[in-house]
Amino acid sequence: KTDFNIAVLPGDGIGPEVVEESIKILNAIAEAFHYRFDFTYGLMGAEAIYKTGNPLPGETLEICKQSDAVLFGAIGDPSFDNNPDAKVRPEQGLLKLRKELGLFANIRPLKTYASLVEKSPLKKEIIDGTDIQIFRELVSGIYFGEKFTDEEAGYAYDNCKYHRDEIAPIVHMAFREAQKRRKKLTLIDKANVLDTSRLWRKVCKEIAEEYPDVELDFMFVDNAAMQLVLNPKQFDVIVTENMFGDIISDEASVIGGSIGLLPSASIGNENALFEPIHGSYPQAKGKGIANPIASILSTAMMLDYLQLDQAAEKLRQSVEYAIENKYVTVDLNSEQPYSTGEVGSFIADYI
Amino acid sequence: KTDFNIAVLPGDGIGPEVVEESIKILNAIAEAFHYRFDFTYGLMGAEAIYKTGNPLPGETLEICKQSDAVLFGAIGDPSFDNNPDAKVRPEQGLLKLRKELGLFANIRPLKTYASLVEKSPLKKEIIDGTDIQIFRELVSGIYFGEKFTDEEAGYAYDNCKYHRDEIAPIVHMAFREAQKRRKKLTLIDKANVLDTSRLWRKVCKEIAEEYPDVELDFMFVDNAAMQLVLNPKQFDVIVTENMFGDIISDEASVIGGSIGLLPSASIGNENALFEPIHGSYPQAKGKGIANPIASILSTAMMLDYLQLDQAAEKLRQSVEYAIENKYVTVDLNSEQPYSTGEVGSFIADYI
Ligand SMILES: CC(C)[C@H](C(=O)O)[C@@H](O)C(=O)O
Ligand SMILES: CC(C)[C@H](C(=O)O)[C@@H](O)C(=O)O
Repeated sequence: KTDFNIAVLPGDGIGPEVVEESIKILNAIAEAFHYRFDFTYGLMGAEAIYKTGNPLPGETLEICKQSDAVLFGAIGDPSFDNNPDAKVRPEQGLLKLRKELGLFANIRPLKTYASLVEKSPLKKEIIDGTDIQIFRELVSGIYFGEKFTDEEAGYAYDNCKYHRDEIAPIVHMAFREAQKRRKKLTLIDKANVLDTSRLWRKVCKEIAEEYPDVELDFMFVDNAAMQLVLNPKQFDVIVTENMFGDIISDEASVIGGSIGLLPSASIGNENALFEPIHGSYPQAKGKGIANPIASILSTAMMLDYLQLDQAAEKLRQSVEYAIENKYVTVDLNSEQPYSTGEVGSFIADYI
Repeated sequence: KTDFNIAVLPGDGIGPEVVEESIKILNAIAEAFHYRFDFTYGLMGAEAIYKTGNPLPGETLEICKQSDAVLFGAIGDPSFDNNPDAKVRPEQGLLKLRKELGLFANIRPLKTYASLVEKSPLKKEIIDGTDIQIFRELVSGIYFGEKFTDEEAGYAYDNCKYHRDEIAPIVHMAFREAQKRRKKLTLIDKANVLDTSRLWRKVCKEIAEEYPDVELDFMFVDNAAMQLVLNPKQFDVIVTENMFGDIISDEASVIGGSIGLLPSASIGNENALFEPIHGSYPQAKGKGIANPIASILSTAMMLDYLQLDQAAEKLRQSVEYAIENKYVTVDLNSEQPYSTGEVGSFIADYI
């Protein structure tokens, strides 16, 4: 297959700017490798609420379902964050999209770049050589369990529910990834308190028998929150449930000092979505200072997913070349910064 | 009041060793300030399971209820951690004790010590001068909500429920503390996803009107997990629900590089319990290398609670004197380490 339908959801804040650079890159790749990418744009997030009243219009969902892959920018707008009573919120669009597309696995690779180590809040000797892959379950758990508020009586609840069929697929994925790496898988849970965590442990243990070459271990989430800071190098592949994954993966994202570089993939059986892990960063919107590399590396993950391995490799090489030569935005090079568009063009030209 | 009944629960691992030093200290304080402390010992944790089959024997609970304050060591034993199917677990004893005594607020002060800053995994400029007080709700939420497992059908759930009456008391406590400090309170929640978090926000906003001198702000838990590492100095007082508090407070505990120094208090309307935040550290048991200062500073929090302000101040001065003069255990001074007992005696003598 050489022709692909790509759904493009620029979203809010700096989303449109960084996604534009990814499209530049995909056009360069199409030319170099003789592929064809057709882009169909959809509204999503605050942008979509302003224009349609709906954070995920039906048309956008349809575009995504028809696509080979979804390229997504960012979501979120301060005018909603400061109004917790808003009935319609940008985040609902993202949650609904994940659920509707069945994107059960959110995958975040975390690597430190030798040339950027000094940007980290952590000491060099702590983070040097860290290389972690986090698998977060994305369409179940407390995010999607029953929610209820009784204003009158003054209480609310959120139910965290897991079925073993919601656990097994991502655990298999994580084991397969560990086999390709350092063969260590850590389940992060709270099995000393939660029934759902005990179910996760049980399912992981059963599945482990199919992967005898991978060492499986367990870590309580509170301890994991410490260990990620104390000694991140101890981790290879991590798998965890939705809420713990949200917290732990964001914590882990800052250890390398390069959150502007980190990509993510959200994978389902029939669809997949690729987005930078940084947020919509509204303060930077329109200033040309946003780092496009996280979006560009998300595009590399998209190329992996589409099995365009050579193109993915070429893209990653180009990004590393740009970073090594300090052809980067102000977050990584305050002395001689390049703009969002310059960095994207540099990488595209290199391809 | 000058006579106090102290319940002593040494617990597991290094618990007994560090609690012994706290008792040494309390005896020194009794002498110096003419108070009287009567100590009544109770079994708790793995120790209690081995001896009675119950992690919290009725007698222990009774001793605690009769006490003016509870001094607690640590809980946990690897033989249970490695057996997630164990029906009786040490942690159940601690959870039950918190619930039965109504210890709704877990309070953790976090300070960096100038002389220990280089022990931190974080860079000096990031952590220098950090001074945070965390209030974690301790007897509700997903820890104590309905739990259910259907092995046959292959699912499990844990319900996270909050009533406003379970939120208000700790929020008031946190506001009062903020008034005594830098007048900033941050609620950590996930209000963009959870109904319970939206209830927390609402209750906090209402209560804020009674504390107009305190600035209240809100932070999503995933962002908080990043901000604690990127810029811990931005926080003054933090308040949060049970599970987020478990994760965030453990993460925060490692930023100062001195987890062996950090105390905690768990406060209710009629009872209070004081414990070091480090765990049972079974590898160190019986070796005389455990740092007693976290337990000793927990004892200082106990003196605050008992309104023995002068004694508390004297004790804190003595601890700082020991730290400044490197009269500390191997975790903080590997060149010329002192033993657990030596450090305790040094501080007691200084009093
Ligand atoms: C925006 C929010 C609902 C979302 C989440 O919590 O999943 C975000 O934090 C993320 O991690 O993608
Ligand atoms: C032992 C465990 C149940 C406990 C908790 O999760 O509350 C511990 O981690 C703590 O923070 O005191």
